[in-house]
Amino acid sequence: MREHHGAGESHLPAQWPDAVVMARSTEEVAEAVRIAHRLCVPIIPYGAGSSLEGQIHAPFGGISLDLSQMDSIMAVNPEDMDCTVACGVTRQALNEHLRDTGLFFPVDLGAHASLGGMASTRASGTTTVRYGSMRDLVLGLTVVMPDGQIIKTGGRARKSAAGYDLTRLMIGSEGTLGVITELTLRLFGIPETAQSAMCSFASIEEATETVVEALQCGLCLNRIELADAVQMNAINRYSGTDLPEQPTLWIELTGSSVQVAHDMALLRDLAEGSLRFDVAETAEAASKLWRIRHTALYAARALRPGIKGISTDVCVPVSKLPACISAILEVIATTSIVAPLIGHVGDGNFHLVLLHDPARPDEVEEARHINSNLIRIAIEMGGTCTGEHGVGLGKKPYLEAEHGPALDVMRGIKRALDPANIMNPGKIFDL
Amino acid sequence: MREHHGAGESHLPAQWPDAVVMARSTEEVAEAVRIAHRLCVPIIPYGAGSSLEGQIHAPFGGISLDLSQMDSIMAVNPEDMDCTVACGVTRQALNEHLRDTGLFFPVDLGAHASLGGMASTRASGTTTVRYGSMRDLVLGLTVVMPDGQIIKTGGRARKSAAGYDLTRLMIGSEGTLGVITELTLRLFGIPETAQSAMCSFASIEEATETVVEALQCGLCLNRIELADAVQMNAINRYSGTDLPEQPTLWIELTGSSVQVAHDMALLRDLAEGSLRFDVAETAEAASKLWRIRHTALYAARALRPGIKGISTDVCVPVSKLPACISAILEVIATTSIVAPLIGHVGDGNFHLVLLHDPARPDEVEEARHINSNLIRIAIEMGGTCTGEHGVGLGKKPYLEAEHGPALDVMRGIKRALDPANIMNPGKIFDL
Repeated sequence: MREHHGAGESHLPAQWPDAVVMARSTEEVAEAVRIAHRLCVPIIPYGAGSSLEGQIHAPFGGISLDLSQMDSIMAVNPEDMDCTVACGVTRQALNEHLRDTGLFFPVDLGAHASLGGMASTRASGTTTVRYGSMRDLVLGLTVVMPDGQIIKTGGRARKSAAGYDLTRLMIGSEGTLGVITELTLRLFGIPETAQSAMCSFASIEEATETVVEALQCGLCLNRIELADAVQMNAINRYSGTDLPEQPTLWIELTGSSVQVAHDMALLRDLAEGSLRFDVAETAEAASKLWRIRHTALYAARALRPGIKGISTDVCVPVSKLPACISAILEVIATTSIVAPLIGHVGDGNFHLVLLHDPARPDEVEEARHINSNLIRIAIEMGGTCTGEHGVGLGKKPYLEAEHGPALDVMRGIKRALDPANIMNPGKIFDL
Repeated sequence: MREHHGAGESHLPAQWPDAVVMARSTEEVAEAVRIAHRLCVPIIPYGAGSSLEGQIHAPFGGISLDLSQMDSIMAVNPEDMDCTVACGVTRQALNEHLRDTGLFFPVDLGAHASLGGMASTRASGTTTVRYGSMRDLVLGLTVVMPDGQIIKTGGRARKSAAGYDLTRLMIGSEGTLGVITELTLRLFGIPETAQSAMCSFASIEEATETVVEALQCGLCLNRIELADAVQMNAINRYSGTDLPEQPTLWIELTGSSVQVAHDMALLRDLAEGSLRFDVAETAEAASKLWRIRHTALYAARALRPGIKGISTDVCVPVSKLPACISAILEVIATTSIVAPLIGHVGDGNFHLVLLHDPARPDEVEEARHINSNLIRIAIEMGGTCTGEHGVGLGKKPYLEAEHGPALDVMRGIKRALDPANIMNPGKIFDL
């Protein structure tokens, strides 16, 4: 139990908590936090254990507060297109529950994650280009503060100008300012139609140019994903497919059928220079097309069996993608690392899977060298070290470069709200 | 000068600053704040003076820091659909500047406001139903902190999971945590087509029901505005029109022409029970229709010439609008006040103009009675005391009821970041 709670899916070495506490209600969370506060023991909120950067690790020991049993869906309001859920509900469970309402919650990521964890790490995913990230889709929260006080932030109104935005302050704070126990979320109507296409280009530049134009035209993009030639090669090997080993876009348009048909025709025009533009004509074809996309990570890992790799996570202004990618490919070429690329190109966010053997110090150093150079390049281009995975322990060394003196403002807030530093200590930044 | 800077457009009695300082750059702002910090003098950021709740008043004297000369547009990046502007740029000036790019900045409010002020008060307006509010459209900020330190929050990436969301913390903090001096904003492509309609209903319930259905169907709504019968009567008197004196919706759809035509037909079906559904067939007709909407406030005030009135600003879940409105109309019926209603119904936000003579204590008391009851009702329904005007001095008495113990968390942040309490003291809450 302690081992499981101190590692999750991160590439970092496990750091076990001293104990695991299972909480079943906000009141139980508050009770646990009050005791920890009195005894000055670290509290590490634990949702589904899917975080990638060591957010659930216990570098100072303490209590892993497992919230996975807080899985009730308290309210669904179809008229207002919102719902209130406990933090341990997964996005899959919520969408399953919503199935007959015609509504859905759109944040769509690779992991089987809890909604509380997704808020804590400001998660996003393939549909962020259309619907935004957790930052945009949470209306209100219940939070247990570091002294055990229970507060409510936000509410059910679609907007408010009433004071500081504590909801957004808690989102992305990775459990360092309190424990999110309940969330009120925006929901959306399931669009009438979806149509998907796959499209290869001679270069990343040409693919990106098509994306920029599609965004400027306001096409009804639901997803727009990019893979590079290395990733396409990995997919062909893994799936036995014969896809062009060229930069490739997966695109999904959703909306009314007239709109989708109109926008798909426009997209085909925009992608005029593409090598190949395949529209999925049936639901099965679309589903096959997206299945290929979803195997990308496994296909990448299969290039070096038994190796997990680090997933980088920079995000830059979309127009900077080609320059950012070509700069990092030059760095990668000076190493022995194989690094397939896949990304949420509509947001400027991409992942390189840095395949390396953690037992080989030379490869570890090469992976670190690539990641730190990538982050430097992204920050120089006005981007960020992490688009969606969060900071945890893994990205801490890069926050000073990204935020400069703003990092001290973050520290000031942390000290004010958690003077004893019991809430997930050592994460995001050192005090 | 001091008089002008201590009143703005608020209904509250003026409170003059001791001095007005004009700043022309972030560095000059930092210099002014550093001096004020050393001397413990209040600093009150001043943009265009259009705030409604006393945000620019000087209850403790001090310096009104006029930022209106910081009006340069530093960068427009059409490929990334973003721009960086100084805080004193107005939204009108920005859109004028963008005219030839095919892009625009969508937050559309009644006032001639500066973008820095709009961020500070978390402004929204008629197009929030489509594009979101200032909360959603700011990518990054330059902020002078209360000790004179200059920080940058966010950046140009579309999303980031790198640490606390200081951008969102500053947005809506009304100058109490620092001075916003530069903003990086999202821009959008101007849609191909717009089509507008005006539509009257027998009841607010029926109008709201149509709105809920239009939102659930994901129609390409750009604006959806509601007026009640009292407001329509005021408009007829003011404009010499002969419009039905019934609850009325103004609707604008924007997008590709196929989509707009498709969605307008669907909207007409959804509004089947309406008394009248008039689509503007020409651009002039659409422009006339929206001109009528924009005269609403003047028409309301003309019901009692010489009287400005207080504009209430609650926001509730959309489905609660009919119950909220009917509850407050019962309260209004027990008073002598005339109160036309107009609102951004797609967000659940509406304004009552409480026409009363500030020189008559009985009327002042009646207006206060209506406003405080309205806020109580809205909060009981999961709503907020202010959807878009902010707190300033006017809404302070209601924050405890809305936020409970979360208000103390806000105070903790304020104390940590501005221990000398020089930044716009006395606004939002008392320490």
